[in-house]
Amino acid sequence: MTFRLNHLAVVVEDISQALAFWRDALGLPLSKREHNAEEEVEIAFLPLESGEIELIAPTNSESGVAKYLAKRGAGLHHICLEVPDIAAAMQRLRDHGIELINDAPKVNADGVRYCFVHPKSALGVLVELYELPRSG
Amino acid sequence: MTFRLNHLAVVVEDISQALAFWRDALGLPLSKREHNAEEEVEIAFLPLESGEIELIAPTNSESGVAKYLAKRGAGLHHICLEVPDIAAAMQRLRDHGIELINDAPKVNADGVRYCFVHPKSALGVLVELYELPRSG
Repeated sequence: MTFRLNHLAVVVEDISQALAFWRDALGLPLSKREHNAEEEVEIAFLPLESGEIELIAPTNSESGVAKYLAKRGAGLHHICLEVPDIAAAMQRLRDHGIELINDAPKVNADGVRYCFVHPKSALGVLVELYELPRSG
Repeated sequence: MTFRLNHLAVVVEDISQALAFWRDALGLPLSKREHNAEEEVEIAFLPLESGEIELIAPTNSESGVAKYLAKRGAGLHHICLEVPDIAAAMQRLRDHGIELINDAPKVNADGVRYCFVHPKSALGVLVELYELPRSG
């Protein structure tokens, strides 16, 4: 089985400043920008040939991302991989003693079922798993 | 133009311990392990549907990766994107005021021409660019 990269998230202070590097200087396309009120972040999506880079900037100083930025600075934040069956993937991780941040899959507005692996168990990497909704 | 992710590098203390998570618990395939004497690292390659994850562990306490690990801890290290023409990509970056770590492309043992963008210019992300050798 191979996994597809869904996205690689990069935390930045300011989306426009980050686009000056990623889009204008490096040349990546920008597919959309969105404001996520629940997470209190602004996101810019830069598609790769497979998967995409997400630039994430906090919109206030209270959000989880704002606190991460204050503590760790801007940079690579997390990697999200697609799995065919998130419940099975979570069970397999638990069976290997891996700690998950959420015990059951969450569901986002697009119908994606997702979870996060605790970075302690993933040797310093924040890993997100996505089960995409079945189409049709 | 879209960019292909060539690899995402993750610095770890110990390859076997990291494989217990990435391969055994999460289920990614392991395509090969190699010792890179020049960089003083051991590398495990875990292919994704497109691109791969590289787990990198220092083999002594003096290497650049060892010093990074001591200072920042284990975690996401750099992202490598493929470009069709690295000289053109480097010139475009310079024209936008972006600082590069190497002034001219380096060439690795596989004939890949590569360079690194300074993380200061890439807002905290270490970005590597690859121009793959033309086949045939």
